[in-house]
Amino acid sequence: MTSPQRAPGGFPVVGIIGGGQLARMCAGPAAELSLTLSVLAEAPDAAAAQVIPSAPVGDHTDIDAVLAFAAECDVVTFDHEHVPPHVLDALVAKGVPLHPSPDALHFAQDKLAMRERLTTIGVACPSWERAVDAAEVAAFGDRIGWPVVAKTPRGGYDGKGVRVIDSADDVADWLEQVGRPGALADGVLLEEKVDFVRELAVLIARSPSNQAAAWPVVETVQTDGICTEVLAPAPDLDPDLAAVATAAGLRIAEELGVTGVFAVEMFEVRDPATGAAAYVVNELAMRPHNSGHWSMDGAVTGQFEQHLRAVLDLPLGAPTPREPHTVMANVLGGDYPELYPAYRHIMARDPGLKVHLYGKAVRPGRKIGHVTVSGGDLAELRERAGHAADYLAGVITE
Amino acid sequence: MTSPQRAPGGFPVVGIIGGGQLARMCAGPAAELSLTLSVLAEAPDAAAAQVIPSAPVGDHTDIDAVLAFAAECDVVTFDHEHVPPHVLDALVAKGVPLHPSPDALHFAQDKLAMRERLTTIGVACPSWERAVDAAEVAAFGDRIGWPVVAKTPRGGYDGKGVRVIDSADDVADWLEQVGRPGALADGVLLEEKVDFVRELAVLIARSPSNQAAAWPVVETVQTDGICTEVLAPAPDLDPDLAAVATAAGLRIAEELGVTGVFAVEMFEVRDPATGAAAYVVNELAMRPHNSGHWSMDGAVTGQFEQHLRAVLDLPLGAPTPREPHTVMANVLGGDYPELYPAYRHIMARDPGLKVHLYGKAVRPGRKIGHVTVSGGDLAELRERAGHAADYLAGVITE
Repeated sequence: MTSPQRAPGGFPVVGIIGGGQLARMCAGPAAELSLTLSVLAEAPDAAAAQVIPSAPVGDHTDIDAVLAFAAECDVVTFDHEHVPPHVLDALVAKGVPLHPSPDALHFAQDKLAMRERLTTIGVACPSWERAVDAAEVAAFGDRIGWPVVAKTPRGGYDGKGVRVIDSADDVADWLEQVGRPGALADGVLLEEKVDFVRELAVLIARSPSNQAAAWPVVETVQTDGICTEVLAPAPDLDPDLAAVATAAGLRIAEELGVTGVFAVEMFEVRDPATGAAAYVVNELAMRPHNSGHWSMDGAVTGQFEQHLRAVLDLPLGAPTPREPHTVMANVLGGDYPELYPAYRHIMARDPGLKVHLYGKAVRPGRKIGHVTVSGGDLAELRERAGHAADYLAGVITE
Repeated sequence: MTSPQRAPGGFPVVGIIGGGQLARMCAGPAAELSLTLSVLAEAPDAAAAQVIPSAPVGDHTDIDAVLAFAAECDVVTFDHEHVPPHVLDALVAKGVPLHPSPDALHFAQDKLAMRERLTTIGVACPSWERAVDAAEVAAFGDRIGWPVVAKTPRGGYDGKGVRVIDSADDVADWLEQVGRPGALADGVLLEEKVDFVRELAVLIARSPSNQAAAWPVVETVQTDGICTEVLAPAPDLDPDLAAVATAAGLRIAEELGVTGVFAVEMFEVRDPATGAAAYVVNELAMRPHNSGHWSMDGAVTGQFEQHLRAVLDLPLGAPTPREPHTVMANVLGGDYPELYPAYRHIMARDPGLKVHLYGKAVRPGRKIGHVTVSGGDLAELRERAGHAADYLAGVITE
């Protein structure tokens, strides 16, 4: 393994476990800040390995590979939340500074632990319960009302590991796995199906010194369980709700000891009695997050730069938006593998578009990139970003 | 030599000859656009080689090394203007698409050729003449008025190869080299010492299809012949002069066949009779240029992204500024080699600052980075950018 090349002047090496698009998008900010990245990549052609010189291939579940990788880094962070606890523990035992820490990551890796902890500290959550058998599932549904949202406590993402169920029969296969090692060892997480107005996300960076910075609350739009569009800031958001939601995000970050960039996905709800706007927390993500991609172009400090600053305990940058609105649209793979001609077309159609692609082969429905546009007219920006994403996906042809 | 790794989907490889900071600053935009870079670097630790996976070491004057490098690239461009004509010719003979072309580059490499060509096409220049002996130098000075600016036609940059002279004696050593191979083979370039109001720069991108985009005209501030500060756009610039200067830049780009990003350094002068603002062209640079670094943070499309789009004949992005003012200050090396503590300090002092460092060892007076700040209050922005640059250089200590 070639050692990562450190920049002269006392600059550190940041290790990232996982070579996906989140690691890849750290490359530009790291180069500008004279920080060296080293990525433990899944394959030589992983998204991040294409653009970062130090990208040894290794398995994030292999303790020896991870320890050898970390030995060359001053601090280690993550492209994803899937590093197993025993590997995290081995890193801590070796004295490797990990951000976020295993204690914090636990709450992103285990949704039951997350619900318990958030409930303890008084953060608004949907009604929830742990169920280990069909009788408990039925009792929760009968009490809260069907349908119910069932989740595997571990291992889910982008809508995977989530079902909307009408009876215990719909999770019979999951209940069989309760008590066995794996995503369902401790049971199934059941949640009230929230009658929400829209989905919001709070994005925060927190450093080991407890400096924190919050971007404006954004609206996220999901299609089939996958985020497809983000509006930054969330349009027409009640200022009181924005303040309360941001405060909740900051509180969670501090209580859970999160370091680095941290996203709280929320539902915006209406109080049935008063009609007042409120939030309940849906999910946590302890890493740069799709809901923050807009900030690369739309804020003074983008989330990838901020994450690097946070994990190194450098002073945080201003999260201030640069323009009244930024719209981000995810680009999903379509049927046609040659993206380059489509990319020329969207660049020609819209010179103000910011295109971000992840170096991934096209597969239908796979997140392969995103686009952003910034300006003053939200409806126009949504049309422009949506058009570009649809055109790249092959959903439209002109 | 490992081949550069191409992104799936039909995306090209852009080769850059030279591994300095200009190549380095292409890394972020290339990653976002899914373009692969390959850099022919001076050394394994060259600025760009630190951040770009494909960075074979080779000499830009070695035909074999350059041809082997170019064979792996779809298009080749430059970090600097120092590739010798016979090497450029060898690339052209092999059918390598070069941007800018050798014919265009000639006018950036040879200041006598540039003055002749600009004069032919009617672009405003200082009074100038070629001198091959002391008598010709004396005659020019006596006619135009002393002092006179003397330049080596080739090989100068950042104030090197430029003298302000009071008599032919001041270039006696240069005159001895006239007629011998080298920077002074064809003589000394003599120019009127322009009584200028300030210095301006026009930055343009032009594609092989003749699409062109111009950023707003900027003011550049030089200290000891080195650019230290750029104000974008040039404050209080006469709109007629802005239009005329931009038109001149676009005309030069087209007449000289320049492709890629192109900078025209100008003097702003006053017509002695009418007092009207006018320009005369000082220098040309056929590559991304220090006067355009502000655009990385301050414009919708930064110059490095635009350069990549231009050399690939992709549609150009919008050069629109994001905020009323952006100030760029160059960071020069000071006496203290450890930059990291100073960098922490300036980040803490100013969360709105954008810091760009080039991975270069500190040497007194060496350009090692730049900072930008954007906003509405020009005087405040100049103070902030200047403070950060001075602090990093060790000129001030608080």
